[in-house]
Amino acid sequence: MKTRISIITSALLLAGCSTVAEPQAESQYNASLIITNGQVLTINDEKDVIENGVIVIENDTIVAVGDASLLSRYQAPKVIDAEDGIVMPGMINTHNHLPMIAFRGLGEEGIENRLFAYFFPLEKEKLSRDLIYQATKLGAVDLAQSGVTTYADMYYHVDDMARATKEVGLRAVLGETVIKFPVVDAPEPYGGIEYATQFIEEYQNDPLITPAFAPHAVYTVSKEKLQEINRLSAKLDAPVLIHVAEFGNEAERIEGNDQQLSPVAWLKEIGVLDNRMVLAHGIHLDQNDIDLIKEAGASVAHNPMANAKGATGIAPAWEMYRQGLRLGLGTDGPMSSNQVDLWRTLSYTANMQRLKHNDRTIMIPEQVIELSTIGGARALHMEDQIGSLEVGKKADIIIIETQSPNMMPNYNPYATLVYQANPGNVSTTIVNGDIVMEQREIKNIDMAEMQQAVRTIEADIAEFAKELSKKAIKSKSLMN
Amino acid sequence: MKTRISIITSALLLAGCSTVAEPQAESQYNASLIITNGQVLTINDEKDVIENGVIVIENDTIVAVGDASLLSRYQAPKVIDAEDGIVMPGMINTHNHLPMIAFRGLGEEGIENRLFAYFFPLEKEKLSRDLIYQATKLGAVDLAQSGVTTYADMYYHVDDMARATKEVGLRAVLGETVIKFPVVDAPEPYGGIEYATQFIEEYQNDPLITPAFAPHAVYTVSKEKLQEINRLSAKLDAPVLIHVAEFGNEAERIEGNDQQLSPVAWLKEIGVLDNRMVLAHGIHLDQNDIDLIKEAGASVAHNPMANAKGATGIAPAWEMYRQGLRLGLGTDGPMSSNQVDLWRTLSYTANMQRLKHNDRTIMIPEQVIELSTIGGARALHMEDQIGSLEVGKKADIIIIETQSPNMMPNYNPYATLVYQANPGNVSTTIVNGDIVMEQREIKNIDMAEMQQAVRTIEADIAEFAKELSKKAIKSKSLMN
Repeated sequence: MKTRISIITSALLLAGCSTVAEPQAESQYNASLIITNGQVLTINDEKDVIENGVIVIENDTIVAVGDASLLSRYQAPKVIDAEDGIVMPGMINTHNHLPMIAFRGLGEEGIENRLFAYFFPLEKEKLSRDLIYQATKLGAVDLAQSGVTTYADMYYHVDDMARATKEVGLRAVLGETVIKFPVVDAPEPYGGIEYATQFIEEYQNDPLITPAFAPHAVYTVSKEKLQEINRLSAKLDAPVLIHVAEFGNEAERIEGNDQQLSPVAWLKEIGVLDNRMVLAHGIHLDQNDIDLIKEAGASVAHNPMANAKGATGIAPAWEMYRQGLRLGLGTDGPMSSNQVDLWRTLSYTANMQRLKHNDRTIMIPEQVIELSTIGGARALHMEDQIGSLEVGKKADIIIIETQSPNMMPNYNPYATLVYQANPGNVSTTIVNGDIVMEQREIKNIDMAEMQQAVRTIEADIAEFAKELSKKAIKSKSLMN
Repeated sequence: MKTRISIITSALLLAGCSTVAEPQAESQYNASLIITNGQVLTINDEKDVIENGVIVIENDTIVAVGDASLLSRYQAPKVIDAEDGIVMPGMINTHNHLPMIAFRGLGEEGIENRLFAYFFPLEKEKLSRDLIYQATKLGAVDLAQSGVTTYADMYYHVDDMARATKEVGLRAVLGETVIKFPVVDAPEPYGGIEYATQFIEEYQNDPLITPAFAPHAVYTVSKEKLQEINRLSAKLDAPVLIHVAEFGNEAERIEGNDQQLSPVAWLKEIGVLDNRMVLAHGIHLDQNDIDLIKEAGASVAHNPMANAKGATGIAPAWEMYRQGLRLGLGTDGPMSSNQVDLWRTLSYTANMQRLKHNDRTIMIPEQVIELSTIGGARALHMEDQIGSLEVGKKADIIIIETQSPNMMPNYNPYATLVYQANPGNVSTTIVNGDIVMEQREIKNIDMAEMQQAVRTIEADIAEFAKELSKKAIKSKSLMN
């Protein structure tokens, strides 16, 4: 891997890019932040790896990527020594329900019909605006500590999620859920459309938050409402996040789907499958579905670990990847995969495809890291801004230390990341040019206060959850 | 989960156990080490969980397990505050080739026939007694830092592995490989039998090392040699570690197997399947195989993550577990799974069975943790000594902190461990009553010296490996 190294001088990359300043010859250009001494994985088209690499940041933007010679041309008030660690684009989690982190670890006793016997009663009783705010804060810290710099989410009270996410300092695409029954922040069916519209207008130009619609699924949102959301999303230029083909029986659950079209074909048929759509899961897809998604410029958020844990199946990710689909990685919510970071998901991304295709040579580490970075950016239609370390892109960067025994040896950084690293190896996280975590220390919030708030929520939920488990397990034994 | 708590007083458990001392009434008994303030997962038959629990250790043995009231009856020169963390038996990795950690991360570029085009040339060129010693040290540190206290291994120069393992302070079952062609430490075919015999005699009574035979597989060791090993293992009372049913075509590769018996049936037929045998992998097993293994009192080392990465399949682990087979978890070697710890493997243990059986209610976290501890002990035929926190057992104990954001909330410690924790959350590792790591600091060896030795090996291997990759990838393109 280390053989294929080319040095990118900032001058070369600056050519044709009008947003960045060309350093003056013979004098040092003042930047805001410099990262030195890293093994830089650029994830550019050539997948250049720069040994002893340097990245120069001016405010929120990368202005130079190259070797140590850059140090003679740039200076900055803050310089981070990567200490031979791996420097790469922040990872992008393309599907989550982050506030459910308040419930993670619950209902793991093998409960039948967990969604209806456990999730929904729990959310009905315990969800609140405050819980969503506090839990998002915990979740955003967990993401930052594990090297995720952007996440996409479908949940409720997304304005409070936005507030918590910005406090921690992460980037997010936040979709307000639209569904055919009353929910915590919308007492009327489909009340989420109005909530989302207001949220989108409020956050339209936010540097960190991309506001979005999140119609729940094709079987819980009517044709007419999907079409209304499509019109609004075009008008407001907002993404549309939706669960599609997570279950094998979705076609028969779609109201009015007399021809039993596949969920993807249904979206096409009703005129809403377009390049603002992000389809979460996409497990039960055939080649025609993949063709339709590609033609439309829509994308898929692939959640291989959650899909294994929930026994929902193995998506055709290798096929989608090989055919150039916009494909990113996600975890699904913290009650589905429990971890919000992507480290284990990296390994599942490779290994599930290998099992499925009975071929150990596919989905190699370089491809997996591509999916977790620029792939995620493409899936969120943000590849012009994030997903690689290139001049002109936003400075969303993580450093992974390589001194710990579990990171040794490091022959091939992609393999080291996919198969050896764990969240604790992430040392520094930078989002939009701001240092969110340095040497594992979270910068922007009071950690003790956040942890205390979570403990209070945990204590409040624990008793109720215990009773719910008893009931759920009792109903299971009645069923058996 | 927390509802099912019962307090075990030392007096109760001491009854009938002559190896431990009964504390004097009205005065404090002097022990050597006490752990306080932990959420203690005993993994005893009742799976008792003790909140605010205490464990008392005298030399190498657990002498009391109970609640905080024990503190009035015992004192010790060293007390470890678990700070509300999870205290559990050290995990047991039942299948590894630890010194291959020197090569981890190599040959991950999607190489066809990786075993012959990559592994064997690499081992032939680079394996040495010194590499095995140094790499074992790195591997043992990695294991200790991730909460594995006992590992079982099949490799070469096991006397050097024993030396390195003891220096770090871990427990191990070390099997010297026996195979039909010359290898690094045995120039004659089957030279491993003699090497193993000497090793077993030397380490027969070692407190940490259980010496063993490791015939490689049924298709690489003849019937006669398997029978000879069986006789010697009975005479020396040594375990026999062997790869079985890792590949679907093993039956046809067994010399003399005219009836095309399954690998397990073959072992039974030739009279060597007994209660000293540990079968690694066991992927391609039918019900008859499972019955034969159970009847013989043999065991299976299950490697779900390595088997997924290598696309070798999903073993019938749920069937084996439900039928009470001696079943433990393993990682396979560091070129197969790259991580030597069990954390990710815990998640694969649950999730692969759920996918296979299309049932999200099976292999719940409590069962997975059982497999990683007492299950591993039973698989290694060591359940009288290790695998649970009970009076009279060896003090092999780990503490996992629960303060980090990724460990919050902690409603159900088993779920927290299986789905949230990562190796970096292990704070303290105790083996045989000795503290091997405390607050992540390795105690018994000079870490900088170990790391320098590994870097020297890495530099030496890197160039050779690069050329090997080029050749292997070239041969792949010629094949295509």
